[in-house]
Amino acid sequence: MTQQVKVGIVGGTGYTGVELLRLLAVHPHVELTVITSRGDAGTLVADMFPNLRGYVDLAFSDPATANLAACDVVFFATPHGVAMSQAQALVAAGVKVIDLAADFRLQDTAVFERWYKMPHSCPEILQNAVYGLPELFRTQIKQAQVIGNPGCYPTTVLLGLAPLLEKGLIDFSAPIIADAKSGVSGAGRKAEVATLFSESSDNMKAYGVAGHRHHPEIEAQLTQLAHQSLQFIFVPHLIPMIRGMLSTLYVKLSAAAQDVDLQKLYETRYADEYFVDVLPAGKLPETRSVRGANHLRIALQRQSADYLTLVVVQDNLVKGAAGQAVQNMNIMMGLDEKTGLQVLPLLP
Amino acid sequence: MTQQVKVGIVGGTGYTGVELLRLLAVHPHVELTVITSRGDAGTLVADMFPNLRGYVDLAFSDPATANLAACDVVFFATPHGVAMSQAQALVAAGVKVIDLAADFRLQDTAVFERWYKMPHSCPEILQNAVYGLPELFRTQIKQAQVIGNPGCYPTTVLLGLAPLLEKGLIDFSAPIIADAKSGVSGAGRKAEVATLFSESSDNMKAYGVAGHRHHPEIEAQLTQLAHQSLQFIFVPHLIPMIRGMLSTLYVKLSAAAQDVDLQKLYETRYADEYFVDVLPAGKLPETRSVRGANHLRIALQRQSADYLTLVVVQDNLVKGAAGQAVQNMNIMMGLDEKTGLQVLPLLP
Amino acid sequence: MTQQVKVGIVGGTGYTGVELLRLLAVHPHVELTVITSRGDAGTLVADMFPNLRGYVDLAFSDPATANLAACDVVFFATPHGVAMSQAQALVAAGVKVIDLAADFRLQDTAVFERWYKMPHSCPEILQNAVYGLPELFRTQIKQAQVIGNPGCYPTTVLLGLAPLLEKGLIDFSAPIIADAKSGVSGAGRKAEVATLFSESSDNMKAYGVAGHRHHPEIEAQLTQLAHQSLQFIFVPHLIPMIRGMLSTLYVKLSAAAQDVDLQKLYETRYADEYFVDVLPAGKLPETRSVRGANHLRIALQRQSADYLTLVVVQDNLVKGAAGQAVQNMNIMMGLDEKTGLQVLPLLP
Amino acid sequence: MTQQVKVGIVGGTGYTGVELLRLLAVHPHVELTVITSRGDAGTLVADMFPNLRGYVDLAFSDPATANLAACDVVFFATPHGVAMSQAQALVAAGVKVIDLAADFRLQDTAVFERWYKMPHSCPEILQNAVYGLPELFRTQIKQAQVIGNPGCYPTTVLLGLAPLLEKGLIDFSAPIIADAKSGVSGAGRKAEVATLFSESSDNMKAYGVAGHRHHPEIEAQLTQLAHQSLQFIFVPHLIPMIRGMLSTLYVKLSAAAQDVDLQKLYETRYADEYFVDVLPAGKLPETRSVRGANHLRIALQRQSADYLTLVVVQDNLVKGAAGQAVQNMNIMMGLDEKTGLQVLPLLP
Repeated sequence: MTQQVKVGIVGGTGYTGVELLRLLAVHPHVELTVITSRGDAGTLVADMFPNLRGYVDLAFSDPATANLAACDVVFFATPHGVAMSQAQALVAAGVKVIDLAADFRLQDTAVFERWYKMPHSCPEILQNAVYGLPELFRTQIKQAQVIGNPGCYPTTVLLGLAPLLEKGLIDFSAPIIADAKSGVSGAGRKAEVATLFSESSDNMKAYGVAGHRHHPEIEAQLTQLAHQSLQFIFVPHLIPMIRGMLSTLYVKLSAAAQDVDLQKLYETRYADEYFVDVLPAGKLPETRSVRGANHLRIALQRQSADYLTLVVVQDNLVKGAAGQAVQNMNIMMGLDEKTGLQVLPLLP
Repeated sequence: MTQQVKVGIVGGTGYTGVELLRLLAVHPHVELTVITSRGDAGTLVADMFPNLRGYVDLAFSDPATANLAACDVVFFATPHGVAMSQAQALVAAGVKVIDLAADFRLQDTAVFERWYKMPHSCPEILQNAVYGLPELFRTQIKQAQVIGNPGCYPTTVLLGLAPLLEKGLIDFSAPIIADAKSGVSGAGRKAEVATLFSESSDNMKAYGVAGHRHHPEIEAQLTQLAHQSLQFIFVPHLIPMIRGMLSTLYVKLSAAAQDVDLQKLYETRYADEYFVDVLPAGKLPETRSVRGANHLRIALQRQSADYLTLVVVQDNLVKGAAGQAVQNMNIMMGLDEKTGLQVLPLLP
Repeated sequence: MTQQVKVGIVGGTGYTGVELLRLLAVHPHVELTVITSRGDAGTLVADMFPNLRGYVDLAFSDPATANLAACDVVFFATPHGVAMSQAQALVAAGVKVIDLAADFRLQDTAVFERWYKMPHSCPEILQNAVYGLPELFRTQIKQAQVIGNPGCYPTTVLLGLAPLLEKGLIDFSAPIIADAKSGVSGAGRKAEVATLFSESSDNMKAYGVAGHRHHPEIEAQLTQLAHQSLQFIFVPHLIPMIRGMLSTLYVKLSAAAQDVDLQKLYETRYADEYFVDVLPAGKLPETRSVRGANHLRIALQRQSADYLTLVVVQDNLVKGAAGQAVQNMNIMMGLDEKTGLQVLPLLP
Repeated sequence: MTQQVKVGIVGGTGYTGVELLRLLAVHPHVELTVITSRGDAGTLVADMFPNLRGYVDLAFSDPATANLAACDVVFFATPHGVAMSQAQALVAAGVKVIDLAADFRLQDTAVFERWYKMPHSCPEILQNAVYGLPELFRTQIKQAQVIGNPGCYPTTVLLGLAPLLEKGLIDFSAPIIADAKSGVSGAGRKAEVATLFSESSDNMKAYGVAGHRHHPEIEAQLTQLAHQSLQFIFVPHLIPMIRGMLSTLYVKLSAAAQDVDLQKLYETRYADEYFVDVLPAGKLPETRSVRGANHLRIALQRQSADYLTLVVVQDNLVKGAAGQAVQNMNIMMGLDEKTGLQVLPLLP
């Protein structure tokens, strides 16, 4: 019998926190050990999140006294900057760290500091951190001590384009364009007027006019996959749905792509990836087809000889955050990658 | 030609404030003179509420310096307690006051103080204030200097039951039950987790377990209409729609009601009320049938010889708040009651 | 090791059908054997319901040729009238039948025929059919060959009131009132204008003015529990959410109830019922707290000495339909009642 | 005093029909004369659309007997193919025709026939028909007898790009990309599973994989404005909101555009267009800012030296359909273009 993995969660009161709890509460090889919250220490988790009644008996602990060092894995579902302040001590204690914020996503600390307006406090940990996108970096994740779990938008763009980039099929004389749409839960569980029901419902908008923080993250990964610099245009939109993300990608194909069966290329590339589903030619995905589940679905649509459109959907809180984090944990702990993640999407 | 009414709005940044602006901006006899906001002085109103671009050129003024005394009418779209702190000075200056909060709704200051947790600062003004429900108190409103504009729930319950109460057709041995449902805008434009899109969407709940502040307001008015004490049970619910309120009312009929054609009674009672629509027998109203408009629709459904159900709908921000306030203003200023309020409901 | 239960589903293209599939696809002791659909024979189930891609490989079969007799259990997720036309043959073949429609819910065939406008074709099967509400009729379900799976509304009203009725704590001089609210999926997956997004969204209404078919079903069960006749008033409402049902119940308490700790009564009554959750005093349930799960939550709110309000929530497609059907199957087949149903509610 | 315009509507039971009614019912210079519906002749309009109670007293007429020739203007809110079957007779009778479907949008009948799968029955009328986009073709509209009212998507793309095209600022070596998002009302008031609330809510998708009928319409107009052929990529998406359309446009700028102040160019181009609003630099529009109103708002966002993004919003049923049709009628009848269209957007 596999031993239970002792898990701690720092900052369990946001949407990625409760989503980790939903998945981990029934994970057969996880023992939820500690959940911290500065503001809600003492509160029963199930009092804040009534869906957990009967499944999670823990109360939130004060971060100051929580014994995270006794865990095997600690997830940070915290604002940017928290994980890097505690990672060093945890790593020293042999604890594996998975950060769902941005502290370990950008290898270039100058870029990090420009976009997140704070100095990076542990560049040496960052240097050994792995970008937690299993379908691209599974080997490194297996050995990693610290994971920077990808942002939600980057997951869709990178998995959407990886097969083309790996084969050199994109013509970089034109920009790569990602027109991305996210459900409102992506904005988090913060009291803000802009994401009130009466503001966000029956309404949509583009946002991030001055630049979205996922832009440099995507650009860095794309550049690495492309082995060259490129122009990346990214326009995110807010959609009146709770969960769900759909990215429509527009790329110019290189001359080499003209004779390639791209549908087959994608099907082959992801044939062994349980969580990536390439739809049959002519089908388009809906976000609800992955609601609550760790699957990501991709459709290809050729516009002309040299332009390709891709449509990629995922649940922003699952494959885009907590589910991918659990997938990373499974890999790091030597478990079957699917463990605890075979939850069927909820439809309707 | 009618002279223009100079209007001021105190606290224009909430939903009742923007709704007053939407209605008054195209009111043919209103000159919007001043809109105050403590926190947003200097901001253009249309920058906060982009639907007003091209219609409202005003900026928010600092309440400390705004010359409200120069107005003919001042609306208070503020939290409870603000109107009563300024009413005396305005009344002294000859300005008419319409408070959309609760300061002038409850004649019994002890009840006010118990529910609103603050002393009433101007009981003598209150004594002469009129409860602004035109269909019941039009004569008094004409003469009033200060109006307590009714709460949204009370408007539905009182207009729903008035014809029965006026004719003595209710048997008070059983409680009057109001199972009421409101769209989320009723909670206001405050940054709160509970009314975030991701919390309120695809979800519903009852609330106000410890008692809702509209309970004493409704009870006081019902008691007055009934000329006797009665038991009133009120359970409000939060519904995932922006606007709209539906109250389902359950009453026991008195013996005298057995031979009364209640459908006809309602149609007759409201025949001359432009904003109250009694649906034909057998029809039930939808909230969207009044979206954005000052109409209230009522349907009767006889359950048995002695039990009647009524279904009442309105737009909580219009007939339940800003629209009714404008209706009151029209009456007070001697204008046709419908002026500026003949806006068709938006469907779909 | 437990043997696998061979399961057939008749009529798998509606919402109760896909919900059965979602639950049964990962049920550890079920082998999905056949799914029929008259109109869609040959279509892959996962092509119609993309959430099932990778989980269900079956195609819909033609009902005419499907070998249902080879199943251990057959679910009917069909319109009223279909199950009773096939039950006799299946029962003769030793197959257990669970009907999610109304064919086996009403013991009085005259009542059935009045409300469903069709003769009952197998009254002798009906006579031995069991009303599948496990928390009330578990013993009978264990022995049953045919189950009439309760309607969604009846499940909330009956579980909400059973503890009072069992103890004789209701005063029947006043009617029992159920003001019930349902998400739109309760109307099924039929192409109809009234349930289009643009008609149902941002809107609500009462419906069923001429009487809802769940009325006689609830009344029959209440009468049996009360051992006397009673007046039952039922007003259903349509709410703009996909899933979720909330029933607000108003009852007059008998003199005997005055000294009873009702909160404790409910907690005790349901202490061993895994799927029924009595909330702590002062808490009210939200529908999303059970989204996608088989739990039903109840809150009590005492209005006065003699009036009690109960608020009951469930997912109309799970505890109100497919989940309860699986719960019944587990009981009938001697499995742990919770098997395959420990799916955490999806929140947000 | 202006004489009243006698107006007929053919096919008043869809969303563009009810929207025409909402606008025309309070239009000060319109007399609603006849509304036809094949299936609902005899039904009161206000019985089908309860928002019109008290505003529209007409019943639907049988198209066979309706005296459309007595009208000054007839709107066709019908499926494609109906207007062209009746236009000739109406034109002969001196009636002006505004078709909200596609019969008079595409000058090339071969293209029409390929996309709409029907022969064009009156090419000579088509030849003199005017594409009813007032901001581009106002002069021609003034003289027109027959108007092809633009599709909803085309209105956003064409008004979004016209200032660049008119000045020759687009580099056509790259495709023009329109990633467009529409509320569900765009799919019409037809009973279809795909647009049920339970299918469309909390969900989004791209659609039109095989090509959308607005593609050739947009392409034809763009080509004309560009005076050259060009590549146009168009991906429409379905968004869970009732009304509202947002198009995100991606264009490559020509060398000539490098030194142009594009913000100023747009502000100047549309300075006198009441219904087109260019947002201040740095602001992005929300669809609700035009809900129910005939305004269209545009924002520019420069991505790099040679790439520009535009975000354009409108209400798909107003500026995208019925509002624009009324605007066209006003122009054709010599009325002030704004008449009856100064309805403030509904927010929240």
